[in-house]
Amino acid sequence: MLSSKTKTILRKLSQKKHRKEMNAFTVEGVKGVQEALVHADVLMLVVDGAKREEKDITTLVTQAEQRDILVEFAGRKDIAAIKQTETFPGITAVVAMPEPEYDNIFDADTILVLDRINDPGNLGTIIRTADWFGVHTIILSEGSVDPYNEKVVRSTMGSIFRVHIIQTHNIVEMVETLKENRYSIAALDLAGTNIQKSKKTKKQALIFGSESHGVSDALKSLVDETYTIPGKGGAESLNLAVSVAIALYITSLQ
Amino acid sequence: MLSSKTKTILRKLSQKKHRKEMNAFTVEGVKGVQEALVHADVLMLVVDGAKREEKDITTLVTQAEQRDILVEFAGRKDIAAIKQTETFPGITAVVAMPEPEYDNIFDADTILVLDRINDPGNLGTIIRTADWFGVHTIILSEGSVDPYNEKVVRSTMGSIFRVHIIQTHNIVEMVETLKENRYSIAALDLAGTNIQKSKKTKKQALIFGSESHGVSDALKSLVDETYTIPGKGGAESLNLAVSVAIALYITSLQ
Repeated sequence: MLSSKTKTILRKLSQKKHRKEMNAFTVEGVKGVQEALVHADVLMLVVDGAKREEKDITTLVTQAEQRDILVEFAGRKDIAAIKQTETFPGITAVVAMPEPEYDNIFDADTILVLDRINDPGNLGTIIRTADWFGVHTIILSEGSVDPYNEKVVRSTMGSIFRVHIIQTHNIVEMVETLKENRYSIAALDLAGTNIQKSKKTKKQALIFGSESHGVSDALKSLVDETYTIPGKGGAESLNLAVSVAIALYITSLQ
Repeated sequence: MLSSKTKTILRKLSQKKHRKEMNAFTVEGVKGVQEALVHADVLMLVVDGAKREEKDITTLVTQAEQRDILVEFAGRKDIAAIKQTETFPGITAVVAMPEPEYDNIFDADTILVLDRINDPGNLGTIIRTADWFGVHTIILSEGSVDPYNEKVVRSTMGSIFRVHIIQTHNIVEMVETLKENRYSIAALDLAGTNIQKSKKTKKQALIFGSESHGVSDALKSLVDETYTIPGKGGAESLNLAVSVAIALYITSLQ
């Protein structure tokens, strides 16, 4: 049985304002919790009592106990109250939000700049893809979905802990600072140069706007080059996470 | 007010077995309905009565009426009963399922073969991306999500009408037939040759397995070449739709 305090914490952490207030978020599932135990500050684990004997879960519980992390076991009724998806994946961790670090931002060769990204699945997939291609700095504008939203965290498949996400209230000022720090600024759009013709620059920032609004005019005025992924078919556009992935693939070859 | 017959039809079409039985599916939203009116056999339109004066919707209603397609207007209570997402996008079309055509399958230069793809968002994004890159033939194995599921249809953004989807009960036999028709068979996997080294072949089939199971052993035995998208970071794998997109981008350059 879960304590009522834990139930309250879990319920609150499903809302952005409480995540901010409590400076914590949740990660569900074996893979996510494994990554959290390696890369983050895990505050507690909640385990489905019916699954406590499963090997993967036992291993995680033992690791947590060795590090004096609180573990609580949930009964059947608790699960119904706390689950975020149709089926509770057996284990969830409450994790402290990472402290934003501003010191070494401008050391990164490639920085992704995301302007008003609303779809949690897209943001999670972008974080996972960035991690795959070794891009570990993402600047996220105000008006985007919270990166610690449970759907985002789930789609990152653990990459949320390996990518440094900087949330900014003033994305234009941030991109100006990138320019001052000698980043070339590229944006992806439906009306740019063929991305195959993109040239390698030592430090580059890649800007992507939301699926519905694209890159804002204020950001466009800061862009050195606009690129397009050439298509041959009938679709009007590519999915945002797909565009980011192709751009990161191309960048990874340079 | 919607007739009770229409409400029943819409409710039934949210289930795979009824879609099959009735040989129809639904497409929500202005963009999807526009595409349906161009490329498919639209059986009826259902319009949110409160939005009938909106320009985009009026245009579609006029088009439908000129072609003697039945249009029904839904009241507030009807909307609550029929909506598939939190907000009803104002218009939905009931569309006849396309007849499967087997005649010209082997004319295509590139064919996508998808084995047990479960995630509707991934399948929809793959269809949209294939359309973008001019790949218009997709073979889908048994055990995959129904391509006429409303979430798949929505994520295709209209591309569902431009891509020929062949559902097969025997994917292995299908791939054998592709080989007999001189297709080179490539698969993507985490342990293959660097995909940058892939060579152009006149006719090629690209196989992708599900996120959880990868390519099955039976299919692996038919594969001429296995490729991997090289990564540098920490993520264990790429999202499936992202992998397909990068592979199709590379193929489009050849």
